[in-house]
Amino acid sequence: MTPTATPGSDLTVAQLQRRLAEFAAARDWGRYHTPKNLAAALSVEAGELVEIFQWLTPEESARVMSHPGTAHRVEDEVADVLAYLLQFCEVLGVDALQALSSKIERNEKRFPSTGSGHSME
Amino acid sequence: MTPTATPGSDLTVAQLQRRLAEFAAARDWGRYHTPKNLAAALSVEAGELVEIFQWLTPEESARVMSHPGTAHRVEDEVADVLAYLLQFCEVLGVDALQALSSKIERNEKRFPSTGSGHSME
Amino acid sequence: MTPTATPGSDLTVAQLQRRLAEFAAARDWGRYHTPKNLAAALSVEAGELVEIFQWLTPEESARVMSHPGTAHRVEDEVADVLAYLLQFCEVLGVDALQALSSKIERNEKRFPSTGSGHSME
Amino acid sequence: MTPTATPGSDLTVAQLQRRLAEFAAARDWGRYHTPKNLAAALSVEAGELVEIFQWLTPEESARVMSHPGTAHRVEDEVADVLAYLLQFCEVLGVDALQALSSKIERNEKRFPSTGSGHSME
Repeated sequence: MTPTATPGSDLTVAQLQRRLAEFAAARDWGRYHTPKNLAAALSVEAGELVEIFQWLTPEESARVMSHPGTAHRVEDEVADVLAYLLQFCEVLGVDALQALSSKIERNEKRFPSTGSGHSME
Repeated sequence: MTPTATPGSDLTVAQLQRRLAEFAAARDWGRYHTPKNLAAALSVEAGELVEIFQWLTPEESARVMSHPGTAHRVEDEVADVLAYLLQFCEVLGVDALQALSSKIERNEKRFPSTGSGHSME
Repeated sequence: MTPTATPGSDLTVAQLQRRLAEFAAARDWGRYHTPKNLAAALSVEAGELVEIFQWLTPEESARVMSHPGTAHRVEDEVADVLAYLLQFCEVLGVDALQALSSKIERNEKRFPSTGSGHSME
Repeated sequence: MTPTATPGSDLTVAQLQRRLAEFAAARDWGRYHTPKNLAAALSVEAGELVEIFQWLTPEESARVMSHPGTAHRVEDEVADVLAYLLQFCEVLGVDALQALSSKIERNEKRFPSTGSGHSME
């Protein structure tokens, strides 16, 4: 990282995926990391992210980063979700970025930009 | 992308995040994309990923990519989870890669590699 | 209870739990119904319930039962959540009603009714 | 029901639903309890139930009630899931027991007991 780089700007998904794999291997966690367990762990962390917002109004939810304690919780849960997503992809050999790129291309055909309604699925 | 590149290998999170933001803006979906709603959508997609594995044994769960139909479902749900995670991060100004990198560093201190037990939190 | 009772009003959790157990036994689904799998299935169905509401405003969410199609989806997901909760409790010998009654008693002490803030946990 | 009944056996869903409604009303929590928020809270609690099981083998998951600490966590999360399910049903006027009874009847037609495969949906 150069001294002038935006923090995080030269991190890549591939590097993080490797660090996570080494972290798990060094602790002999491979036997826990079945795709089934990692998918469950991902959903648990997504639930913890939802928990931060569950009683907030839409307006309050837009301001969570202005409270340092809540901002830290949000970043922490984002990290957990991404960690399990990347570990899940690692054990199954899925390229998450490519999967998303392909999906965006499909959705560009399915949801012309003049259309109404809302869905990503 | 050069013609010889591995598919997906030169995609970056920042590029995908921009394409998702443009996609949503072109369809005027901004009003739906509160942090609260995006966190809920992320957890819904994580649930759809879990659904693929819910009745499988650990061994069966390791073989899902060898069935083309299931492999496609897995990639599709991975794309959806990542899409909502990146859109969530976009609206709140969270750098997901940096958040994960910081978390890995913290966890390296909390879970020395000789330790037993298992947790990422 | 009078013979003219509202439909459903004389159903009990115990009866439904027995019908679910017989249903699963008749189809030889016992091997799938580990506590781990049933907890995952419960969370998947909870996600499907959230999906109905994910893009709605709080006000819109209060009116879902006035649209017959959406009302049916809501009832269907409520049934699925309850089905997996009862099956989970059945395989582990947990009395869900008693667990909730005890929890309400504990919460009555933890959250005096003059208190401010909001939490059930 | 006789005086020697198992604890909890004479509790009913209707009574618990009323106690929960009174509990929330006494604390002025009604404004938080939109259907959307209660569905989110239900899914968060379902995630906390999954968390107990996420790294367990199927066999380990069947023995959770033999550890008092884990047994208490399980009962606590079951109580939370049921609490939010009943509060959700209360605000929308959904009869959860009737919804489940109707669903079991539909499923008895959809999944004849000689059939193979596994699904409740």
